[in-house]
Amino acid sequence: MRIGITGTGGVGRTLAGALTERGHEVVMGSRDPVAALANPETNRQTGTTLAGWHEAFPSVRLATFAEAAGHGEMVLHATSGAGSLPALASAGDAAIAGKVVLDLSNPLAWGDQGPSLSVMNTDSLGEQIQRAHPGARVVKALNTVTAAVMIDPAMLAGGDHTLPICGNDEAAKQQVAAWLAEWFGWRDVLDLGDITAARGTEAYLLFWLRLTQATGSSIVNTKVLR
Amino acid sequence: MRIGITGTGGVGRTLAGALTERGHEVVMGSRDPVAALANPETNRQTGTTLAGWHEAFPSVRLATFAEAAGHGEMVLHATSGAGSLPALASAGDAAIAGKVVLDLSNPLAWGDQGPSLSVMNTDSLGEQIQRAHPGARVVKALNTVTAAVMIDPAMLAGGDHTLPICGNDEAAKQQVAAWLAEWFGWRDVLDLGDITAARGTEAYLLFWLRLTQATGSSIVNTKVLR
Repeated sequence: MRIGITGTGGVGRTLAGALTERGHEVVMGSRDPVAALANPETNRQTGTTLAGWHEAFPSVRLATFAEAAGHGEMVLHATSGAGSLPALASAGDAAIAGKVVLDLSNPLAWGDQGPSLSVMNTDSLGEQIQRAHPGARVVKALNTVTAAVMIDPAMLAGGDHTLPICGNDEAAKQQVAAWLAEWFGWRDVLDLGDITAARGTEAYLLFWLRLTQATGSSIVNTKVLR
Repeated sequence: MRIGITGTGGVGRTLAGALTERGHEVVMGSRDPVAALANPETNRQTGTTLAGWHEAFPSVRLATFAEAAGHGEMVLHATSGAGSLPALASAGDAAIAGKVVLDLSNPLAWGDQGPSLSVMNTDSLGEQIQRAHPGARVVKALNTVTAAVMIDPAMLAGGDHTLPICGNDEAAKQQVAAWLAEWFGWRDVLDLGDITAARGTEAYLLFWLRLTQATGSSIVNTKVLR
C-alpha cells in the first residue's frame, strides 16, 4: 500500500526501511528534504546520515511533509515531540483528512534535570494532534517501544508483550491493529480507549526511560497481565 | 518483626491484615486514631469502616503516626498522596531516622478532567519525602499495584510480573526485596536506581489507571521483558 511517513529520524527511517522491504510504496517527509539530505549529522539509531541511509533504501522517496502525507493511504507520524504539531500543520489538513494517522510522537523534552514531558496530566500530544486536525483519524501507538522493537517484536520474549493503542475512531484502531499484526507480527495490541488515554501511554515514557537505564538497553517492553 | 504502617485506608488495612496474619507486630497510625475509629465512612477497597475492619484484626494496634512509625523496625508509608508529607512530618524525624521507609504513596489528584499527578517530571513524591527526611532510608515500591496484588502477586499470572523499586540506599532496597519475597512471594523486583526513578514509577500510575479502565479490573500489572 501507499504509506506516508512524517519524520526522517531514527524511527521514521526504521519504519520506512521495514515497510519498503515488505513491498509498500513509502514516501518519507521532512520540512526541507534537500536540506535533510545534505545534513551531515549521523543519526544515533541508524548510525548513518540521511543520505547514507537513503543509499541503502533508494526505493523510499524523500519529500516534504505535505507530499509524504498526501501520498499515503495512511500516515505514520514519527517526528520528535517538539516537531510534531508543526510537521502536521505543514502537511496540511487536506493531506491527512479522512486518513488514519498513526501517531508515534512523544512530548519529551531533555533538560539538565533529565527527561520531562511538555504536556501531560489533563492533556497529551495525541489529543493536541486530534484537536488540531479533527478530520484525521488519529491513533496513538508504537510510541512505547524503541524503533527496533516496533518492527520486530519477536526480538523480545518471542513477541509476547503488549502494545497499547488508543484513539477516538474504533475502525481506525482495528485497522491499525491489523496492519501491525500483518507488517511486524504484533499480536497483543491492547485498546486503552479514546485518545485521552494518550495521557497514560505518553506518561509511561518516563517509566520506560528508567527501564532502559536500569537494564542498559532500549530493547525492553512490558507485557500487561490481566 | 515490629512494623509501623502510616495510613489507615484500603492499602494500609490490607497490608496490616496480611502482616498480622503472618505473625508480625503491626501498629497502624493515623492523624487522630480516635476520630478515625469513629469515622462512619466505608472504605471502597475493604468494604468496611475502620472500626468494622478492626474487629476482624484486633491484633493490629491503632495509634498516631508517631506511635506507629516509632514502633516499627521498618515503616510502610501508605497514605494518600496529599496526606503523605504531612503524615511523615507528624510522625517526626526521630521516629523514622535510620529506618527503612517503604513509600507506597502516589501524588494523585482527582479533578473534573480525571486523575493527574501533583508532582512529576523533574521531581517526585518519593524524592520530596527523602529530602524532607534525609535520615530515613526511603525505598519506593508497591505503589504500582493495587493492594490485593501487593499482598498476593500469585493471583496474577502465577506471580510472574514485575515490581519496580528505587531508592538511594542499596542495602535498604535489598532488604525490602527480601521482605517482599518472604512476606508476599514477590520474585521479580526490579531495581530502577536511585530515588529519582520515582519520577518514572509515579508517572506509570497514569498508564496503570488506563489499564484498569480498559480491563475493568484493578487486578492488573506488567511484566518487564528485558
